[in-house]
Amino acid sequence: MDKKTQLPAYSMPSPLFCYFCAMAALTFALEATAAGSGARAGTIQTDHGTIPTPIFMPVGTAGTVKAVTQQQLKNDVGARIILGNTYHLYLRPGTEVLEQAGGLHRFNGWDRPILTDSGGYQVFSLAANRKIREEGVMFQSHIDGSRHLFTPESVMDIQRSIGADIIMAFDECPPYPSEYGYARTSMELTHRWLDRCIQRLADTPDTYGYTQNLFPIVQGSTYHDLRKASCEYIASKDAVGNAIGGLSVGEPEEMMYEFTELCTGILPASKPRYLMGVGTPWNILECIDRGVDMFDCVMPTRNGRNGMMFTTEGVINIKNKKWATDFSPIDPGLPNEISQFYSKAYLRHLFVANEILGMQLASIQNLQFYLWLVTEARTQILAGNFASWKTDMITRVKTRL
Amino acid sequence: MDKKTQLPAYSMPSPLFCYFCAMAALTFALEATAAGSGARAGTIQTDHGTIPTPIFMPVGTAGTVKAVTQQQLKNDVGARIILGNTYHLYLRPGTEVLEQAGGLHRFNGWDRPILTDSGGYQVFSLAANRKIREEGVMFQSHIDGSRHLFTPESVMDIQRSIGADIIMAFDECPPYPSEYGYARTSMELTHRWLDRCIQRLADTPDTYGYTQNLFPIVQGSTYHDLRKASCEYIASKDAVGNAIGGLSVGEPEEMMYEFTELCTGILPASKPRYLMGVGTPWNILECIDRGVDMFDCVMPTRNGRNGMMFTTEGVINIKNKKWATDFSPIDPGLPNEISQFYSKAYLRHLFVANEILGMQLASIQNLQFYLWLVTEARTQILAGNFASWKTDMITRVKTRL
Repeated sequence: MDKKTQLPAYSMPSPLFCYFCAMAALTFALEATAAGSGARAGTIQTDHGTIPTPIFMPVGTAGTVKAVTQQQLKNDVGARIILGNTYHLYLRPGTEVLEQAGGLHRFNGWDRPILTDSGGYQVFSLAANRKIREEGVMFQSHIDGSRHLFTPESVMDIQRSIGADIIMAFDECPPYPSEYGYARTSMELTHRWLDRCIQRLADTPDTYGYTQNLFPIVQGSTYHDLRKASCEYIASKDAVGNAIGGLSVGEPEEMMYEFTELCTGILPASKPRYLMGVGTPWNILECIDRGVDMFDCVMPTRNGRNGMMFTTEGVINIKNKKWATDFSPIDPGLPNEISQFYSKAYLRHLFVANEILGMQLASIQNLQFYLWLVTEARTQILAGNFASWKTDMITRVKTRL
Repeated sequence: MDKKTQLPAYSMPSPLFCYFCAMAALTFALEATAAGSGARAGTIQTDHGTIPTPIFMPVGTAGTVKAVTQQQLKNDVGARIILGNTYHLYLRPGTEVLEQAGGLHRFNGWDRPILTDSGGYQVFSLAANRKIREEGVMFQSHIDGSRHLFTPESVMDIQRSIGADIIMAFDECPPYPSEYGYARTSMELTHRWLDRCIQRLADTPDTYGYTQNLFPIVQGSTYHDLRKASCEYIASKDAVGNAIGGLSVGEPEEMMYEFTELCTGILPASKPRYLMGVGTPWNILECIDRGVDMFDCVMPTRNGRNGMMFTTEGVINIKNKKWATDFSPIDPGLPNEISQFYSKAYLRHLFVANEILGMQLASIQNLQFYLWLVTEARTQILAGNFASWKTDMITRVKTRL
């Protein structure tokens, strides 16, 4: 097939994406910091549009936020940036298909910013027979057992092919708990891999014309000196944004907060800070309070598919009998159509009857809630009310209805 | 809970539903009949709005057209009327919940017309340990094995509680092939049950204020004299609409067409004719040609969930490797957003990766295609071009891509 004669289905440029504008590296404008808190409001600018912060990024593992159409993601959820998983996209549909499509934006039709992780976390959590060496990681696919090698260089190349606006460095994410010696060796390897990632990106052009921006990742497990050393090393690279990895992997919540605060105290205030894989609504509020700007988590979609819903009134297990004749809206406190149109009783019926629509509606509700939560946090930061709002909101979102 | 103080989530009257208008029985205006064909264009008027005919009615078995939101059903698919299954809705969520909700329209938020089947077909195809007597049918639920009795009276009461605009008579649907004696006995029972249905509806008020309209069902298996007798009996009841049951149950297509034509030749031209459970796109065109106005079938949604798609260019098995790098729209010939926005390659990826979104998009595409097909048929009938258009279209829709 001649790629030049066959335009992709969604080849029209979006209003947010200007082919005639100068492409530029990601920038971050810090607009406000809450009094007596690390909480910040800012704006990230990318070649695929702006992202107000703090922000939650829905996870679109295989190029789809599970059970949600791109139209719903944009119009109902109001997502500003979504994630893709390098490990999954590399295995399916593969870089050859993605390159022929013109990158993931063209492939799935999402014309706002995309962030891809490095595949490191999935290699350690999903793949079989991992062998970690200086060069990289050998592993077997969880799909068909086929053998693959991820190196810092190959992972940068894959993320170039995917075409994400934000590219994550290849890292090793040690489990919790880890021995000090292992955590230190692993962190040092992650740092050497980071340098190779930076070099590889310097040696290769942006694949599709717009700028792809590397975020390095802090590791160091739950050791203060290692986390401090890692933050300092990462900060020294002067990247356009920085990520905190290796948390929310099983450690107590208070420990996660403690190490998040340690990291945000060192990572530069002038760059966006991304806490990877976090978390519950209250985790997000506590970590915004500690200076984090960007979050992602599978919780809203995964828990939604299991009938657990986050609402402005608290957490709901929609399968519970108590909702059978509750004809009030899914979430009276959200302005979104899906939250207002469908009742709790109808959604419970869908889950009891194993209807796919239940998973769809609960996923949308949860994503809407997460986006509402970070948008509201931003409003409160800008209005100077974050601290008192946060205390009240954490009580609300932790309520079990 | 006090029903009066708690309004349902979607209590706002829709623009199509006027609480101040006089409620009235279903009417049918016949607008055109194609030259040299039985094909007709008309308009059905119900208290929940108008239905242009010929029409295809998406099947919403348990109060949800599987994997499609009510917003997508209205805005993307353009459905004018949907089905609910009495058997399924009776078992889950049950009439008590539906009555408390204020009927199925309020429960699922669908404010256009709804038709419910009588449960007869499902009792014979899904339930266990059926015992057919004059009184009705004893059966065990396919969900939990619980025992239930459906009689013409109870089925009318259930459909009153569901609140459908069009209610189907309780019938026995004999399998294909059936012995003549069995087919005759069964048809006579269906006729006696029809009289009891009519009586029950005369004895009970419309549950929710708007008019509920009974359609009787022709049976008689594949015997000419029985079908003729059944059509004459059904026609003698002077119902506002009439249905043809017991076809598309395994008999050859040509036989289905033959008996459809026999029935439409007897059932009054001034009333809408509904052929139950039919069928493929070409089945629908052939039966429009023979004077049928209304169709329903699970095929577009069920086949969609399995990756089989109907398009204006032909039938696609989207899982096939040949679509892996075909970045053309799902269906270039349909104006709908979903058909234009997503590519075949992306949809194939979703199916290969077992992503729910694949089932959603394929279901929407297929329903859009079915609605487009009947809308186009109507346009061609009104323009006087139906016969030649039909011949050409059948070739197209039967093409395997």
